[in-house]
Amino acid sequence: MKRSLGAHTVLYPAPVLIVGTYDAVGQPNMMAAAWGGICCSRPPCVYVSLRKATYTHGAILARGCYAISIPPERYAAEADYVGIASGRDVNKFDVTGLTPVRAEHVDAPYVGEFPVALEVKLLQAIELGSHAQFVGQVLDVKADEDCLNAAGHPDLALVRPIIFAPLATEYYGVGQRLGEGFVMGEALAR
Amino acid sequence: MKRSLGAHTVLYPAPVLIVGTYDAVGQPNMMAAAWGGICCSRPPCVYVSLRKATYTHGAILARGCYAISIPPERYAAEADYVGIASGRDVNKFDVTGLTPVRAEHVDAPYVGEFPVALEVKLLQAIELGSHAQFVGQVLDVKADEDCLNAAGHPDLALVRPIIFAPLATEYYGVGQRLGEGFVMGEALAR
Repeated sequence: MKRSLGAHTVLYPAPVLIVGTYDAVGQPNMMAAAWGGICCSRPPCVYVSLRKATYTHGAILARGCYAISIPPERYAAEADYVGIASGRDVNKFDVTGLTPVRAEHVDAPYVGEFPVALEVKLLQAIELGSHAQFVGQVLDVKADEDCLNAAGHPDLALVRPIIFAPLATEYYGVGQRLGEGFVMGEALAR
Repeated sequence: MKRSLGAHTVLYPAPVLIVGTYDAVGQPNMMAAAWGGICCSRPPCVYVSLRKATYTHGAILARGCYAISIPPERYAAEADYVGIASGRDVNKFDVTGLTPVRAEHVDAPYVGEFPVALEVKLLQAIELGSHAQFVGQVLDVKADEDCLNAAGHPDLALVRPIIFAPLATEYYGVGQRLGEGFVMGEALAR
């Protein structure tokens, strides 16, 4: 039996994305965003949605780019902290001890300790209400060698990204492998 | 040491979203989308990005709405099948035995057997290249009573959504609970 919960921002799984920018004086900053995802294949595009009040909002508009780092579950506390503090008040890299690494193709920092990073060039800032959606083109993906599978692709069991549950406001890790995409359902397609 | 993988649609975790629509003759259809997420808090907005070639693309534009159902891991094969077959050729509800349920607030079907459903009214169709991003307002969230926590919010450990890994093209389940959002990082904020 289903219960109506009302109009909420609910969708599972939501990601935990660490958005890296440089501010006006070149200080690296990062924020946590769960409103983000992939939105186009060609060109490869992703987005993060941010409130205007965030320090990152102005920084993305100023430099026309950002980096996304995927925090692994062992850094869940640091990732949560990044979503609590503001770069206006503190240098969150200093507080967490995480390392800002200048991206190769865009003027933004990613987190050296996190296994996967995306370098993103801003294409559109779409105003939706409380949040602006920053749609950008992925110029490069960088991943730690030791989290790649035999095909050279990031292995989720090694990347160990964090899963966010909106509304309940909880973090989870990745569980067991269920199967291969476009293969598991083949028997039904016959 | 990080390796450059090139410009790819990579972001972890990606969701598996079952997008429900009615076609021109009122037959229920569903497709699987991993390019989707939350993009605004007020109004509560989500999106799914679809190729023009999909049967669902025209159906969303025709009725100005869609439903999103969150498949649980025990239906991973069915969810994968929904991403393989086209509603132009087959009735995927018939093939899978899943039940289309007419949404309350929009003219679209959700999947009765899946624990969480969103009723979404189309706001904008944004052309990004290979994919159009269908941004919509969440009018209601419906969830199975038996997957709610004590606060009445969906419990991820009970919803058991599927996690998709782009590039590696694999599905995973949800693992252990890591902690509470805006609490885990508090020690660092002091």
